[in-house]
Amino acid sequence: MRRHLLSIDDLSRDDIERILGRAESFAEVSGREIKKVPTLRGRTVINLFYEASTRTSSSFELAAKRLSADLVSVKSSGSSVDKGESLKDTVQTLSAYDPAAIVIRSPHAGAAALVARWTRASVINAGDGKHEHPTQALLDVYTLARRVGSLAGLRVWIVGDVMHSRVARSGILAFSRMGCEVTVCGPPTLIPRGIESLGCRVRTTLDELPEADVVYALRMQHERMDGSFVPSLREYAAQYQIDGRRLRPNQLLMHPGPVNRGVELAAEVIDSPQALIVEQVESGVVVRMAVLYELLAGHGAPSGVRAQPATEPQPA
Amino acid sequence: MRRHLLSIDDLSRDDIERILGRAESFAEVSGREIKKVPTLRGRTVINLFYEASTRTSSSFELAAKRLSADLVSVKSSGSSVDKGESLKDTVQTLSAYDPAAIVIRSPHAGAAALVARWTRASVINAGDGKHEHPTQALLDVYTLARRVGSLAGLRVWIVGDVMHSRVARSGILAFSRMGCEVTVCGPPTLIPRGIESLGCRVRTTLDELPEADVVYALRMQHERMDGSFVPSLREYAAQYQIDGRRLRPNQLLMHPGPVNRGVELAAEVIDSPQALIVEQVESGVVVRMAVLYELLAGHGAPSGVRAQPATEPQPA
Amino acid sequence: MRRHLLSIDDLSRDDIERILGRAESFAEVSGREIKKVPTLRGRTVINLFYEASTRTSSSFELAAKRLSADLVSVKSSGSSVDKGESLKDTVQTLSAYDPAAIVIRSPHAGAAALVARWTRASVINAGDGKHEHPTQALLDVYTLARRVGSLAGLRVWIVGDVMHSRVARSGILAFSRMGCEVTVCGPPTLIPRGIESLGCRVRTTLDELPEADVVYALRMQHERMDGSFVPSLREYAAQYQIDGRRLRPNQLLMHPGPVNRGVELAAEVIDSPQALIVEQVESGVVVRMAVLYELLAGHGAPSGVRAQPATEPQPA
Repeated sequence: MRRHLLSIDDLSRDDIERILGRAESFAEVSGREIKKVPTLRGRTVINLFYEASTRTSSSFELAAKRLSADLVSVKSSGSSVDKGESLKDTVQTLSAYDPAAIVIRSPHAGAAALVARWTRASVINAGDGKHEHPTQALLDVYTLARRVGSLAGLRVWIVGDVMHSRVARSGILAFSRMGCEVTVCGPPTLIPRGIESLGCRVRTTLDELPEADVVYALRMQHERMDGSFVPSLREYAAQYQIDGRRLRPNQLLMHPGPVNRGVELAAEVIDSPQALIVEQVESGVVVRMAVLYELLAGHGAPSGVRAQPATEPQPA
Repeated sequence: MRRHLLSIDDLSRDDIERILGRAESFAEVSGREIKKVPTLRGRTVINLFYEASTRTSSSFELAAKRLSADLVSVKSSGSSVDKGESLKDTVQTLSAYDPAAIVIRSPHAGAAALVARWTRASVINAGDGKHEHPTQALLDVYTLARRVGSLAGLRVWIVGDVMHSRVARSGILAFSRMGCEVTVCGPPTLIPRGIESLGCRVRTTLDELPEADVVYALRMQHERMDGSFVPSLREYAAQYQIDGRRLRPNQLLMHPGPVNRGVELAAEVIDSPQALIVEQVESGVVVRMAVLYELLAGHGAPSGVRAQPATEPQPA
Repeated sequence: MRRHLLSIDDLSRDDIERILGRAESFAEVSGREIKKVPTLRGRTVINLFYEASTRTSSSFELAAKRLSADLVSVKSSGSSVDKGESLKDTVQTLSAYDPAAIVIRSPHAGAAALVARWTRASVINAGDGKHEHPTQALLDVYTLARRVGSLAGLRVWIVGDVMHSRVARSGILAFSRMGCEVTVCGPPTLIPRGIESLGCRVRTTLDELPEADVVYALRMQHERMDGSFVPSLREYAAQYQIDGRRLRPNQLLMHPGPVNRGVELAAEVIDSPQALIVEQVESGVVVRMAVLYELLAGHGAPSGVRAQPATEPQPA
């Protein structure tokens, strides 16, 4: 495994399975009253968030703390500091503290890869624009595997605004790497051209949805609901909302949260036993603990150091 | 004692006295150089604050840290996330981290009780709209008892904007449960109808104030000072301000802070030896340590579990 | 050494050298995988920041955590709470938690000294308006001493907006106390009258810059770039920017960060081996650990207690 987690594409199937196994062992820790191990004691993890995020940032924060790391949280509403130049300066400043890891969330695709070029710390992409959100995909795979066992041959439909979704992009890569057959489905205006090259089929109606084993609904972003991409919200829901009529009893339902109730999902399916939505959140902490562990303390870490351009600092 | 602390009404006099005794033992810890005990090591406490608060949130934060818990702080200015639906989603997300306790501050009366229905964690009401602020009342009782010993028969006057004060509401309940005779006093427009049913007398002038053993002045909220509830601030101060002339030498003075100097209190009484205001703040940390202890680690915790509707999750 | 660190003027050369020695020992700790010592376990450090600051606040946060203190961070954008009266109330509230130290950053000169009058905690000035920023000067001295050994007789030029710079003021004091010959240089409109009394020479052109051993460039504040103090940014850069032509190979370059690339520094000098800018940031954590150590745990702490007016609380 490499030194950073920037994209699901960096991970082999073996890498993913090692992370899942590690997460499983941390799930055992999280079930104890003392949910803490000393693994990263005295090491520093920096949360650098240029977008508001309760879910992902608190999940990484808890993961770091349950590994006994010291966490420093740097948040920005992005007004003045999210430009390339400033990001570099911020990262170089924070790197001077010799952190073990920097967890970066940015509105700009590619930001995490840039950060990785500027620091000796391990960099974890916690979402970079519309590009990727690899820990989300890992926790999705973990959650699903916990429910069904092997993922090989499972048919996964990812439904909604695929165009703007880093969750979709990382999900396609992760599910297909684990042997699933992935289909993306949404209005033609919200399916990016060439998405098939990631290893998925494209559908623009839910007609074939009954074939799916897993329905993964994407969050509709509020700023996309105003008619520039979909004729109307009502129209969108009429054609693509997953409701009790469309979701078959043998299908599982996933969603990255937070859910827009009544938009991409109808209320009746959210709380149904088929929904894995709460389990996905629960998985967040243990999978992020596993990622931190594998990058910072795992056996593969020293030998799997990612090649760096010669002009840049090398890990000690 | 129940699983949550939502209202003083949930507490028997025995419950309150057990909390005070526990706070006393934590006061001994807080006097040490190492102000820390390992009681809640590896357990998670979430501060969920939908209103700005330096005092209460930092007090709970320190209480949790001095019990060695891991604290996660989620703050919101309330613009987008304080609606019922979103609160539920947020609480369900945070609950997936399996926190031992959620401390909730909300501008909406009843918010803490809602949170308690959505989580397996112990919920502590850190102020819900105009409803209650039970840990404030507990620290008030603790502070007073430390100074005078038994509270039985003490005459407590709560003076000011009773209408909008969660502090008044929790205070009336707590002081009367401890055997005090409580009087509320303020302009008729700022006394809610039927307040007597909580177990207090009502006065609209300070004429009988000399009978009080304790004068508890409430903070005048800035947004209420503009004339819709009181004719003018000068007029209010003329009739209800506690100053050196009105406060007798044998009376004690309390205030929840922060004080509006020159409004509800005159400068000369704030720093007098009769004032317990600084002691109230000091008590905040140890009383909140005691509440966390009783809910999460106390002997009464398992047996006193609050009954939950059958459809909701039960504590393990 | 006194109980507070408010100004470099409070420190003797011996004090500074003791801090540098202590920082050196913490640099050894920071080089370990477990970057943590138990020195301040169970003690509380409060970061009270009335100005936005990533660099200084995260540096103090890490310093406190690596000493095992509990850190509470109180931040304010300054809109409502930076007036004298409110600052006093805030400090008295926070002091009730019996913190070992309060680290204060304020836009108002003299704020740290006021805080020191209101609390029994040790107060560390993390920047008060245009007045001082003593930990910056200490880390500058530390960084330079690490590179060159003794500072005696070194010629240090501080270049730029001296008028508005607390870094310049603390730097002049610290470098001259260590035996340097300090020159300040900038446009006449940005040199305060009487600055020589701090122990420096004044120049308004870079003509004699070649004599300098160290060039310390100040950050040009964006709000000063609009023409009220300098005719134009281009004009400023033409006359005062440190670039590859002006910086001689035997000169060292320092800057407090963050750098305005292309304004006070040209890109080619920022990343040159002569620049100590990254080392300055690195030094921040260990020097702040050393300051916390000396004030809170050093042998000199009890005897060197700063005299307080008789009406104010005394340390236990």
